[in-house]
Amino acid sequence: MKIILTNDDGIYSPGILALKKAMKSFGSVTVVAPDVQKSGVGHAITFSHPLRVREVYLDSEFIGYGIDGSPADCVKLAVREIMKETTELLVAGINIGANVGINVLYSGTVAAAIEGAILGIPSVAISLEIAESSPDIQGAADIAKNMIKVIIKKELPRGTLLNINIPLISKDKIKGVKITKQYSGDFDEHYDRRTDPRGGAYYWLAGTGWPEKDVVGTDMHALKEGYISITPLRYDLTDKSFIKEVEAWEWNNDINISKP
Amino acid sequence: MKIILTNDDGIYSPGILALKKAMKSFGSVTVVAPDVQKSGVGHAITFSHPLRVREVYLDSEFIGYGIDGSPADCVKLAVREIMKETTELLVAGINIGANVGINVLYSGTVAAAIEGAILGIPSVAISLEIAESSPDIQGAADIAKNMIKVIIKKELPRGTLLNINIPLISKDKIKGVKITKQYSGDFDEHYDRRTDPRGGAYYWLAGTGWPEKDVVGTDMHALKEGYISITPLRYDLTDKSFIKEVEAWEWNNDINISKP
Repeated sequence: MKIILTNDDGIYSPGILALKKAMKSFGSVTVVAPDVQKSGVGHAITFSHPLRVREVYLDSEFIGYGIDGSPADCVKLAVREIMKETTELLVAGINIGANVGINVLYSGTVAAAIEGAILGIPSVAISLEIAESSPDIQGAADIAKNMIKVIIKKELPRGTLLNINIPLISKDKIKGVKITKQYSGDFDEHYDRRTDPRGGAYYWLAGTGWPEKDVVGTDMHALKEGYISITPLRYDLTDKSFIKEVEAWEWNNDINISKP
Repeated sequence: MKIILTNDDGIYSPGILALKKAMKSFGSVTVVAPDVQKSGVGHAITFSHPLRVREVYLDSEFIGYGIDGSPADCVKLAVREIMKETTELLVAGINIGANVGINVLYSGTVAAAIEGAILGIPSVAISLEIAESSPDIQGAADIAKNMIKVIIKKELPRGTLLNINIPLISKDKIKGVKITKQYSGDFDEHYDRRTDPRGGAYYWLAGTGWPEKDVVGTDMHALKEGYISITPLRYDLTDKSFIKEVEAWEWNNDINISKP
């Protein structure tokens, strides 16, 4: 089995290294990841400057390919240039930090899995909730391995990927698995306005990113309750339920154009 | 009416300046946009360094606020810091270049409108298809004005935004308006591998980005046929149609965790 492994924390992240080792028994794992941290870059792609591919070694062991671009760039380059054979699975992670709720849209890790799905590869994003204490990355990698074992026996429809989040609490306390929806309501966020030594203002994005009220059935609620959250995602953003209504709006009368 | 206007081409782009003028009659338009071009940054947000807000003048006329961040950053800062009153409309554009198909995911302009919708503001992204010839930005601004006139009479449901694309052909040849779906199939893309004067390889993202076969009913097809394309989008990526099936997979047997 040919597998692409990527992330947004960068190729030296303990999350990607642990997952590489954990997935060894599934087949050949090719790591193609940003050479520096790229958290929060969303689905950015690079077309205004060219990209470089660098072979990365750690303790003289070949780790994979480091790219001076975004996670989505890594996936494109992996599929279109680096992989010689058809890729059967793409995994993005383990991200150090949960990717739930609105953060799904900001995450480079989820974007990498979306890019994999766009390119027709069964794709999974895996993230680990963290707090102050040092995260149990090996425990998360063991869980991830067992989940991927389930996934590769099944089929994902074209256009759909899985977003998996592992909760903070230590492995033996995890309650189980919940299939969830992306939380998409209000969340705690503000800017922290500060003044530099020259009197100029600057703004730090701040806040917990969590909602005030829990919504049962969402990714955020599952994590909070101590469950592994699995959300099937799609990258076709069309709001099909609203098409009929927009069609009924008075477009042609107001738009100053000639008719065919 | 309080309106936020942003883009991803940067605050000096002719597209945003023409749209600012065109929307004057609707109310007070506050421009908050990246201070340099940010095309293709997707839904990137900035949290690892702070942001600056700069007042921007052109020919000693106040244009708006320039931000050293992404389009989504601009929307967050506009809503959370700059606007003193409730915003009733957010417009992102006019983008110089179409944002259809998979490019919807890469576009900073669409991401800005998504961010507006996340923050509860009725939001619209507007893009103009371009080719070699100098684009008719004034014509596009006139069309955009007429479309916004329709939109502000209606209501967008929470979580839904509109992605509008204006075709290349000159205004009097536009055939009408089509309400469309985002094209999400295969498209033409590859890397152009080149060698630098020192023998090192570098890769340019290349290709038309257009599909081989047209799919009727999509944004790309509408543009190609000379119609204005309007796609209702949502930012909840959950693939609800696939939840039941994933729930039936053998998760709990394979995941090495204790049950509640």
